[in-house]
Amino acid sequence: MRAIVLPGDGRVTVADVEEAAPGPGEALVDVLAAGVCGTDLELARGYMGFRGVPGHEFVGVVRQVRSRADRPLVGARVAGEINIGCEECRLCVEGMARHCPRRSVLGILGKPGAHATSLSLPVANLRAVPAGISDLEAVFIEPLAAAFEIAEQVRVERGDRVLVLGDGRLGLLAAQALASRGARVTLAGRHEPKLETARALGLEACRLPETPTPDFDMVVEATGSAQGLSLALRFARPRGTVVMKSTCAGPTALEASQVVVNELTLVGSRCGRFEPAIEALAAGAVKVLPLVTAELPLESGPEAFQRAAAPGAFKIVLRPA
Amino acid sequence: MRAIVLPGDGRVTVADVEEAAPGPGEALVDVLAAGVCGTDLELARGYMGFRGVPGHEFVGVVRQVRSRADRPLVGARVAGEINIGCEECRLCVEGMARHCPRRSVLGILGKPGAHATSLSLPVANLRAVPAGISDLEAVFIEPLAAAFEIAEQVRVERGDRVLVLGDGRLGLLAAQALASRGARVTLAGRHEPKLETARALGLEACRLPETPTPDFDMVVEATGSAQGLSLALRFARPRGTVVMKSTCAGPTALEASQVVVNELTLVGSRCGRFEPAIEALAAGAVKVLPLVTAELPLESGPEAFQRAAAPGAFKIVLRPA
Repeated sequence: MRAIVLPGDGRVTVADVEEAAPGPGEALVDVLAAGVCGTDLELARGYMGFRGVPGHEFVGVVRQVRSRADRPLVGARVAGEINIGCEECRLCVEGMARHCPRRSVLGILGKPGAHATSLSLPVANLRAVPAGISDLEAVFIEPLAAAFEIAEQVRVERGDRVLVLGDGRLGLLAAQALASRGARVTLAGRHEPKLETARALGLEACRLPETPTPDFDMVVEATGSAQGLSLALRFARPRGTVVMKSTCAGPTALEASQVVVNELTLVGSRCGRFEPAIEALAAGAVKVLPLVTAELPLESGPEAFQRAAAPGAFKIVLRPA
Repeated sequence: MRAIVLPGDGRVTVADVEEAAPGPGEALVDVLAAGVCGTDLELARGYMGFRGVPGHEFVGVVRQVRSRADRPLVGARVAGEINIGCEECRLCVEGMARHCPRRSVLGILGKPGAHATSLSLPVANLRAVPAGISDLEAVFIEPLAAAFEIAEQVRVERGDRVLVLGDGRLGLLAAQALASRGARVTLAGRHEPKLETARALGLEACRLPETPTPDFDMVVEATGSAQGLSLALRFARPRGTVVMKSTCAGPTALEASQVVVNELTLVGSRCGRFEPAIEALAAGAVKVLPLVTAELPLESGPEAFQRAAAPGAFKIVLRPA
């Protein structure tokens, strides 16, 4: 099969690789569409020493299953949760396979990813995509689940004042997800065209460094930059919450005394359950199509990564077929 | 009156200063005993540009009040909450005067402190000290309240595995406070004599870098060092909580991706309500007398600060009389 391959030296290549043979309990899925995520760009730059096939945002059709009991799944259109736990440790037993220390992660750690014509995943990871959600929209289920994870970790009350820092893909998804839960959301960023997109989505958006009163109940740091955290701390009210979404390699400077004196809570937030994302897309509570910057064939992998890294880009979607 | 005065150049002096005249709603309190805290040492080194009379851990006797309604307080033995809010802003109205942006703080910010023969504080800040608590024990009410603040901010369940990092004053108080709430507490530090004191108090104590499995529900960072935070992050389980207690000036290096990937929660924690501390001391649930390293007269202020900064020291208590 064809796939994007990151050799680990900064290059993005497209190559013939062996098709993944589904293991016990797994399904083989033909990829319909797959997104390029900020993490993919980091992996290309060498984050986590990654080599291989990236990609973890996808929608596809089940071609083959191993177990007879899973036969009804063949032909179903699915998205897939990306963490694969050992199913034996305490964390897996408690339903936190996303944190299993022996986990593999689709397209990130020990499991070839979705930037390919097909992939294999445990059947337990698959979620059926309702007919009302298009392929392009379904590519956003994984990142939107990461956005809704914030509301799974931190109680969001109707009327809470929330600032989302960062006008990229994740910022616009997080802002919409929290607004759909009743929060009064302001999005702040540095790119006027992206802020315009945010406004078109019905969000209140302002351009940094002009921002409203620094007195937010919650600040979501989704800048993707190591400088974002200290900015976020400045906008939270005493006893407020700062949600950390950016995974930057290397150390970040933190004004610890500011956290202590203002008794701030910092919450690291990563992947989430797919159900809230699927529900919100099906209900039209979150709009993602304005975030599609371009669709490109899988063969244009290098161009796709380049365009995803450009300042004006939201989501680049790869079409393997 | 006599008082310790920090001129802001690193020196610790003892001088004659004017006695504080109590303002409206305030009481004049004769200090019986006052503790030297890590924050005092930081103030002497220039933290927050401090100049003046330090000291915020004290027990004293009310000598004078301004309002007739407060007369019954005269002669009472009291401790005092150290934050004085404006009483008008939203935070004060919501009972968070500790976070009022216009607050003054006894011996720290805009209010002469307790390293003196007397001090003034709003009557509303004073708390009667029950007869069963000695003067020496009462000096620990303020720092012990800061220790109990952890359990006010983070839900502590019986049997939770808690690691307290730091074998200083605050570490030993936090460990006892959390143990009194049913947590299974391990204290880790680098000073064998202090760890021996912890064991004598009934705590499980181990010497760094030898530590148990890094899988704690909660890690309390009470090392007082800028390096403590990254150590604390390593010992928390996925989705665990790290409580930040050290107020170090300047930036601390934070492995933000570790916080995000493991979805850790970091909670800055400062001062607390006095009630839980007073209750615990009265009930004998927390023992503080083994933490008294020395009692010195106020006139020995420079020596007191020097001894408080020594590696083996727990609490130095000043006696103004």
